Amino acid sequence: MTASSPSSLRVAIAGASGRMGHMLIEAVLASGDCQLAAALDQPGSPGLGQDAAAFLGKATGVLIESDVRTALAKADVLIDFTRPEGTLAHLAVAAELGVKLVIGTTGFSDAQKAEIAVHAQKTAVILSPNMSVGVNVTFKLLEMAAKALQEGGYDIEIIEAHHKHKVDAPSGTALKMGEVIAEAQGTQLADRAVYERFGHTGERKPDTIGFATVRGGDIVGDHTVLFAGTGERVEISHKSSSRAGYAQGSLRAARFLAGKTSGQFDMFDVLSLR
Amino acid sequence: MTASSPSSLRVAIAGASGRMGHMLIEAVLASGDCQLAAALDQPGSPGLGQDAAAFLGKATGVLIESDVRTALAKADVLIDFTRPEGTLAHLAVAAELGVKLVIGTTGFSDAQKAEIAVHAQKTAVILSPNMSVGVNVTFKLLEMAAKALQEGGYDIEIIEAHHKHKVDAPSGTALKMGEVIAEAQGTQLADRAVYERFGHTGERKPDTIGFATVRGGDIVGDHTVLFAGTGERVEISHKSSSRAGYAQGSLRAARFLAGKTSGQFDMFDVLSLR
Amino acid sequence: MTASSPSSLRVAIAGASGRMGHMLIEAVLASGDCQLAAALDQPGSPGLGQDAAAFLGKATGVLIESDVRTALAKADVLIDFTRPEGTLAHLAVAAELGVKLVIGTTGFSDAQKAEIAVHAQKTAVILSPNMSVGVNVTFKLLEMAAKALQEGGYDIEIIEAHHKHKVDAPSGTALKMGEVIAEAQGTQLADRAVYERFGHTGERKPDTIGFATVRGGDIVGDHTVLFAGTGERVEISHKSSSRAGYAQGSLRAARFLAGKTSGQFDMFDVLSLR
Amino acid sequence: MTASSPSSLRVAIAGASGRMGHMLIEAVLASGDCQLAAALDQPGSPGLGQDAAAFLGKATGVLIESDVRTALAKADVLIDFTRPEGTLAHLAVAAELGVKLVIGTTGFSDAQKAEIAVHAQKTAVILSPNMSVGVNVTFKLLEMAAKALQEGGYDIEIIEAHHKHKVDAPSGTALKMGEVIAEAQGTQLADRAVYERFGHTGERKPDTIGFATVRGGDIVGDHTVLFAGTGERVEISHKSSSRAGYAQGSLRAARFLAGKTSGQFDMFDVLSLR
Repeated sequence: MTASSPSSLRVAIAGASGRMGHMLIEAVLASGDCQLAAALDQPGSPGLGQDAAAFLGKATGVLIESDVRTALAKADVLIDFTRPEGTLAHLAVAAELGVKLVIGTTGFSDAQKAEIAVHAQKTAVILSPNMSVGVNVTFKLLEMAAKALQEGGYDIEIIEAHHKHKVDAPSGTALKMGEVIAEAQGTQLADRAVYERFGHTGERKPDTIGFATVRGGDIVGDHTVLFAGTGERVEISHKSSSRAGYAQGSLRAARFLAGKTSGQFDMFDVLSLR
Repeated sequence: MTASSPSSLRVAIAGASGRMGHMLIEAVLASGDCQLAAALDQPGSPGLGQDAAAFLGKATGVLIESDVRTALAKADVLIDFTRPEGTLAHLAVAAELGVKLVIGTTGFSDAQKAEIAVHAQKTAVILSPNMSVGVNVTFKLLEMAAKALQEGGYDIEIIEAHHKHKVDAPSGTALKMGEVIAEAQGTQLADRAVYERFGHTGERKPDTIGFATVRGGDIVGDHTVLFAGTGERVEISHKSSSRAGYAQGSLRAARFLAGKTSGQFDMFDVLSLR
Repeated sequence: MTASSPSSLRVAIAGASGRMGHMLIEAVLASGDCQLAAALDQPGSPGLGQDAAAFLGKATGVLIESDVRTALAKADVLIDFTRPEGTLAHLAVAAELGVKLVIGTTGFSDAQKAEIAVHAQKTAVILSPNMSVGVNVTFKLLEMAAKALQEGGYDIEIIEAHHKHKVDAPSGTALKMGEVIAEAQGTQLADRAVYERFGHTGERKPDTIGFATVRGGDIVGDHTVLFAGTGERVEISHKSSSRAGYAQGSLRAARFLAGKTSGQFDMFDVLSLR
Repeated sequence: MTASSPSSLRVAIAGASGRMGHMLIEAVLASGDCQLAAALDQPGSPGLGQDAAAFLGKATGVLIESDVRTALAKADVLIDFTRPEGTLAHLAVAAELGVKLVIGTTGFSDAQKAEIAVHAQKTAVILSPNMSVGVNVTFKLLEMAAKALQEGGYDIEIIEAHHKHKVDAPSGTALKMGEVIAEAQGTQLADRAVYERFGHTGERKPDTIGFATVRGGDIVGDHTVLFAGTGERVEISHKSSSRAGYAQGSLRAARFLAGKTSGQFDMFDVLSLR
């Protein structure tokens, strides 16, 4: 499992002491074809110097370190779910060393996205708003369903549920689903979205896309899209139970990058969904 | 099926040409212990004079008629899902003749409810906001769950889905569910209900009860109540697929009335849920 | 609604006194572009001579008749959900008169299917194991999902629920879903299907496709296919609430046939899903 | 959070290096009213001597130790999700020292259960087949629903889904649900259970309780009980997303024991569900 055959992909993990870092390290160790090559965390992190798998009660010999250049020199690919500024700093060094980057970080400004594009001329980069394989396949299924059910009076509703700490509604993934559907039908979500219903709403207008939001407990993230016709419904759902789905998608992305030398890609490229 | 043993309950149906009337007639004919005794509709209705089961391709010998007194004289119980004014007119005659009344009509004013209470001194009456057995049992389950899960940080959310023609949100049944839960926890729904979420909502407040509304197609009526804790959820759902549930509940109510001579009751009495 | 503009499609309905016949007649009358041209039932049927829309309390002037040739002479298309022998007798006349046929009947033998193919050289025919638009779109979605989720360790399970009167398990639609998935992954369902689990089953084998069967009440038909990965699930569901979905699909098929003169097609052709 | 006020409950955790041990330690540290008093693991465990919260990147000063007597001397309650033999050894010492025990361990023989009962004369013990609050409340809801829906032709079906590694079917919790329902209706599950359906099954028999099993991915555990009537369904579901629900239930049990000096109890006692 953790043995490193000469041909296995050498993966470095950023944010190695955090929850997502742990999930990524566990996924790398459980994979048959990747090896944990390095583990990065910020200077001052209490985890520095510890074995990267100590949280699993395992010893891998890979210690958490803070020097980016030293860590990247040991790796083929870095998987990075941290903060925009940190990710950009990692990317600058990675581009110089020819190390590839799987970016799961979110919240980049337009200027930061432009910077990523520049670096992607020198090394291969995956940047995707959601690294989960299932979410990306769901986007593709929604595109197909939206086209196939455009005629015939199918009403479209998007229901999402997340944990009690989430501060916005609907979720970014729900909005993206709405955009995918609206575009597949040659329209704009802004012209069709209904985000709230309360009191005397009147009958549902045929071309609307309705959103319903549920918040509670520690629900990681459920999304269901309903196409409701006469006498029947088609439902397409994605349900996350942990961050492990993001880790699995990140490994798929890392394997995809192994065959590239430069260029910017996303999960639709990784999964051949275009 | 339609044979009338001497001991079977003689049931009259009001609004016999309408959709709910048809559902009720079908349920009476399919029951083993009730007989169709009379079928009422308004003067001028095109169905007058036809066999009450013509819509099923059957002949029962019971013709749809408009004279209330003549029709009720043949029955032990009238099941009435019509309009408040019509129901009150039927009830006045029924009270005089000692015929019992199952009232599925909704939308009574306070004055009309008082009038029903007066008539219920002379004959036995069931008046319930929802005649479905399953909905009433669900109210009781929610009461128990709300008490048992009051401690421990369970977030409560009510999700309802109805057809595209429904003009208000949330549904009356969803609101009643919220009231049942709030009262079981010694609180008022008005202090806890959150009916809309959009944009920057902030974190979910612990004591709120959230509502989410879905509209589409010809969904008859789905309600799910979610109690979301840490690492687990309890869900209680009621799903209607047709008006048949109301017809079944009405027959249960009619049988209950067979043993009463006067008094006003509801479905919690019929189902022994108090 | 029932007005017949010169350009509207003239539709005949077979089995006009049955439940599916009623559903079809209601759908034709509610459509904006089809007219009820004729209503057929077997000699001896008690409905003969009655108005075809009497069950709705409406008069259309179209009386239920039993002479196939007379009825078909008034129509462009016949929609037929009856029995194999009846359908073949209708088809022979239809082929002669150049009337097109939408066949929702099931249970044809191979010899009968060959007979249909011969007639389809003279008139255009739709033959499909399931006429519902939603079910056919679901088949297509499953094909795509099965390909996109073939890698990555997604376990596939098919759960179906039907009414208490259903005598076989799993449903034909569930089996067809399994076949679509297995073929999309370059395999055979027979090599992968697990139909029962009880007692000490051992761990789930990765390449299996599991089936779970639920029976109860008057559930018309629910099907859910689960792709369960690590930390996430994708679910694709179809839920029927009435036969209305079959009627809607039949009208879509009838409109498709309006542009054809001969040939055999199925719902994938109608819906452009190939 | 981790501060120990004089009045807070002193909790020891057995199996402190395992997954369930981690979950329990995290729950104790996050509670406002419990303190982590001791952390036990077997002699030879690699975690011995480490801080019990090292897996969280925290230091509590509580080191994992293997001496049962030393550890228990610091605690009011021990929470134990280990193996039957280990739990019994812990219980013998706990009974002697007057330390209370929350037992989440499963798989006790009848002889071992008798031994627990003897020790419970000296100290207070919780023994429950499932420590989750939600699962126990669900049992109670099922008992009520089974009684309220005994008449009226409601078909009962139990559907459960678990991860691909589960080796038996149906789950113990599903079977327990069946028993609760059967007993609430004055019957025995053995007379009513249908565990498999395949091929020509015939119509569903009214008094049966059907089970359907789904296996896939890393599903922690979903259970749904369906009461399917005419035109409606009532569904009661419990969905686990992590072991956190067991940890929360264990803390509720520990608080309940604080007020007891001896006796054997279960989660129905803790939650006042009798």
